Amino acid sequence: MTPYDKLHKHFARLNDLYHVGAIAQWDEAAMMPTGGGGARGQALATLDGITHQMLTDTQLADWLAAAEAETLAPWQAANLREMHRSFRDATCVPENLVERRALANSRCEQAWRVHRAENNWQAMAPLLEEVVALAREEAAARSAANGMSLYDSLLDSYEPGMTCAQLDPLFAELKAFLPGLLDAVIEKQAQHPAVPPEGPFPIEEQRALGLEMMRTLGFDFEHGRLDVSHHPFCGGVPSDVRITTRYETEGFTQALMGVIHETGHALYEQGLPAPWRSQPVGQALSTAMHESQSLLMEMQACRSREFLHFLTPHLQRCFSAARADSTAWQEDNLYRLFTRVNRGYIRVYADEVSYPLHVILRYEIERELIEGTLDVAGIPDAWDTRMQAYLGLSTAGNFTDGCLQDVHWPAGLFGYFPTYTLGAMSAAQLFAAARRSLPELPAQLAEGNFCALLGWLRENVHSQGKFLDYNALMEQATGSPLQSSWFRAHLEARYLEGG
Amino acid sequence: MTPYDKLHKHFARLNDLYHVGAIAQWDEAAMMPTGGGGARGQALATLDGITHQMLTDTQLADWLAAAEAETLAPWQAANLREMHRSFRDATCVPENLVERRALANSRCEQAWRVHRAENNWQAMAPLLEEVVALAREEAAARSAANGMSLYDSLLDSYEPGMTCAQLDPLFAELKAFLPGLLDAVIEKQAQHPAVPPEGPFPIEEQRALGLEMMRTLGFDFEHGRLDVSHHPFCGGVPSDVRITTRYETEGFTQALMGVIHETGHALYEQGLPAPWRSQPVGQALSTAMHESQSLLMEMQACRSREFLHFLTPHLQRCFSAARADSTAWQEDNLYRLFTRVNRGYIRVYADEVSYPLHVILRYEIERELIEGTLDVAGIPDAWDTRMQAYLGLSTAGNFTDGCLQDVHWPAGLFGYFPTYTLGAMSAAQLFAAARRSLPELPAQLAEGNFCALLGWLRENVHSQGKFLDYNALMEQATGSPLQSSWFRAHLEARYLEGG
Repeated sequence: MTPYDKLHKHFARLNDLYHVGAIAQWDEAAMMPTGGGGARGQALATLDGITHQMLTDTQLADWLAAAEAETLAPWQAANLREMHRSFRDATCVPENLVERRALANSRCEQAWRVHRAENNWQAMAPLLEEVVALAREEAAARSAANGMSLYDSLLDSYEPGMTCAQLDPLFAELKAFLPGLLDAVIEKQAQHPAVPPEGPFPIEEQRALGLEMMRTLGFDFEHGRLDVSHHPFCGGVPSDVRITTRYETEGFTQALMGVIHETGHALYEQGLPAPWRSQPVGQALSTAMHESQSLLMEMQACRSREFLHFLTPHLQRCFSAARADSTAWQEDNLYRLFTRVNRGYIRVYADEVSYPLHVILRYEIERELIEGTLDVAGIPDAWDTRMQAYLGLSTAGNFTDGCLQDVHWPAGLFGYFPTYTLGAMSAAQLFAAARRSLPELPAQLAEGNFCALLGWLRENVHSQGKFLDYNALMEQATGSPLQSSWFRAHLEARYLEGG
Repeated sequence: MTPYDKLHKHFARLNDLYHVGAIAQWDEAAMMPTGGGGARGQALATLDGITHQMLTDTQLADWLAAAEAETLAPWQAANLREMHRSFRDATCVPENLVERRALANSRCEQAWRVHRAENNWQAMAPLLEEVVALAREEAAARSAANGMSLYDSLLDSYEPGMTCAQLDPLFAELKAFLPGLLDAVIEKQAQHPAVPPEGPFPIEEQRALGLEMMRTLGFDFEHGRLDVSHHPFCGGVPSDVRITTRYETEGFTQALMGVIHETGHALYEQGLPAPWRSQPVGQALSTAMHESQSLLMEMQACRSREFLHFLTPHLQRCFSAARADSTAWQEDNLYRLFTRVNRGYIRVYADEVSYPLHVILRYEIERELIEGTLDVAGIPDAWDTRMQAYLGLSTAGNFTDGCLQDVHWPAGLFGYFPTYTLGAMSAAQLFAAARRSLPELPAQLAEGNFCALLGWLRENVHSQGKFLDYNALMEQATGSPLQSSWFRAHLEARYLEGG
């Protein structure tokens, strides 16, 4: 075996361990009874330790160096590049720091579940300080290995190659128009209130609708399934993608749009290049590209006027509470409902107009935290100041709905937030490109026909894995690197021009 | 760390990997869509390879030898004994033979799924020959390591310490009375036919009943769940036991008794000694002891007159098809139905009177196959001869319902069959002992109160793990080593004396 072949085999074995880990994690969220948690946590920690050992195995360094001299096909060369990255990312953080971070993050996240509900910032602050200090320590270690700035080195672990230098102009453009757009849309929509349909909406009916929409979008049930978990997610493995949702009987829109969102993620996984799935190059490109696929389905395709035309009779048929003759169940009203824009405190409930403002606020604060220009004690003020500036809302004294609302920081995730908005911009840009090459797309969506759109995504995004870097993929698929203008055009067309 | 401590840590890590493997296997049977099979098989094979490597790690030999010199507490000493056994069993078979067997068994098992349905012995014979030859090769390797005879060395891998020398007199006793008992019972029951209740029995109703019975028996739903799979089993881990069943709407008895059977297995797992669960000594004692726990619940407790008294009103309440005024739904008739004895071709459908004859037939044949006194070509004749002698039925030319009915041999399992009947005998002996120390037990079962019985099993069996060997446990729990007389007394009391 050549060094490259040895690497190929080694990473395929690693992938097999990721496979059982992914299934056990899905099970933990969707199936496991509460009493199973202790032993499961221990088992997954051991599995993590073993995969980490395999990924930092010193012989990998020799094989990686030797493989550089081999003549490789383009996908092999890209695979080798990704192996280098995996090895570097795994080896650059000292084992001891990984363990200290896991402990501190877990302690802080568990405390957060209690203290958020209590609005108790005082109790959270010292725990968060430890988490931030350790995240900075990790940033320093990564930075030493990859030569990036502190924050960039964390961002890079979710979004390979992405830097603040690229992010800042994009976010500056969004900040320049979004607050004004938000005002204008809210004013416009006030003239046409949306009436929420009255329930109850039994879980079985919602589940049947969700499954029907998954089929409509092209989800392959031979290679995946839908279940329930407290926090919806897309997990499993490409050959067997597990998505989850959460139902409440008072309303159906959250669960429905949640299923569509996760289906977007799932279609990406199901479309990854089959011959490369056991290898690093065969994985999804990045967190933002993943989010672009869920948002393309949810925001671009399925909140469109065309799709609502298709969806409305399905909703009327599906729900026993539906009254086809009531205003609430008319297409116009449902479209207004699915495109409602509000000012709100909570990111996860935000619409697509205000969502990026929530993200930019977090990005600015976490960047300062990691770069050391803001300390944890300053978070609530920094949060409130920006909420007032970007969204016109005050969170003074309201930590529950303010800086304690997200699990990310207590869980030690810094550098993750920007990926949501990178995904939203990418979704708009990709969808616009798909529309240009598929003139029939709006008519197809109005018939619930996703074949051509899915085919386009398969070819331009899913089947590419990590072969290209982000901007190269965007350029190949859309003609230009990532830009904010497509997102802006989408928002203006839907919310200012649309009816 | 002392050598023993190193071993403790090593086996705890192994146990964590078994944990994720067990969950992934349960998932494969109960949750996985068909398209996930290829990657899952590969992932589990890699995990198996890694656990096998860890179990055969050469430094274990040094630690095991060094730990012998340590001063250990009794449970630690028993744990060390079980570590020795695990290491010996894992190292005595050459890697290469393990792989060749896995391949041949898998090929034969897959062919069996086709050829059994076709009654095609000719196509199966050469595949079985390969499987038997490799099983004999493994037996020879084990025999060389543990000094046992060929067949004993395979039996030992399911039933540590069990030998033909112990088995033969027990089985001879059964053979001496069972055929006659079978005749007598069938004649007696012919005077009181049982009327099967008419369905349909919706799956939701059956599932609700199954869950209710699991609760009645003492299943802890904080540490386990009930699902559906094609072949019912008890899987998962002690902190999270997964049992499965399979429903058919025409009848409820198979699924109900299946759930009760698997609940017996599950209660054993849930009762294993908590501080030792990560270690070999904290596992279930053996395959036969596991079967004793399922059969104790199913055959001893839940097909008893007393339990049927408790069960009858539940059945009448649970099923929408129930007619409380019809003969079929009366306690007397239901008891006759749950204790029906028949001559049949198929082991898995056999009642507790004829079941051991099916097992003994297989034991005698597989032992000759492994010892080399019978070759594969001789199986059908050997089968037919014994079916006629033990059960009065001919299977000449009927391979489907004869020697091709079980998956065990095609799957390479030799030495497993005896454990079913060892389990049945042990169940009778343990239940008799429980009744002696719990005079109120019959009255409690008539009220659906399993607390005392479960407490007795927890103390005498479950919490013992592998601390004692089989006969030592039986002696401690019942006053004597395993005997056939308790099983005989049970059968005669239920089927000849009972009403």
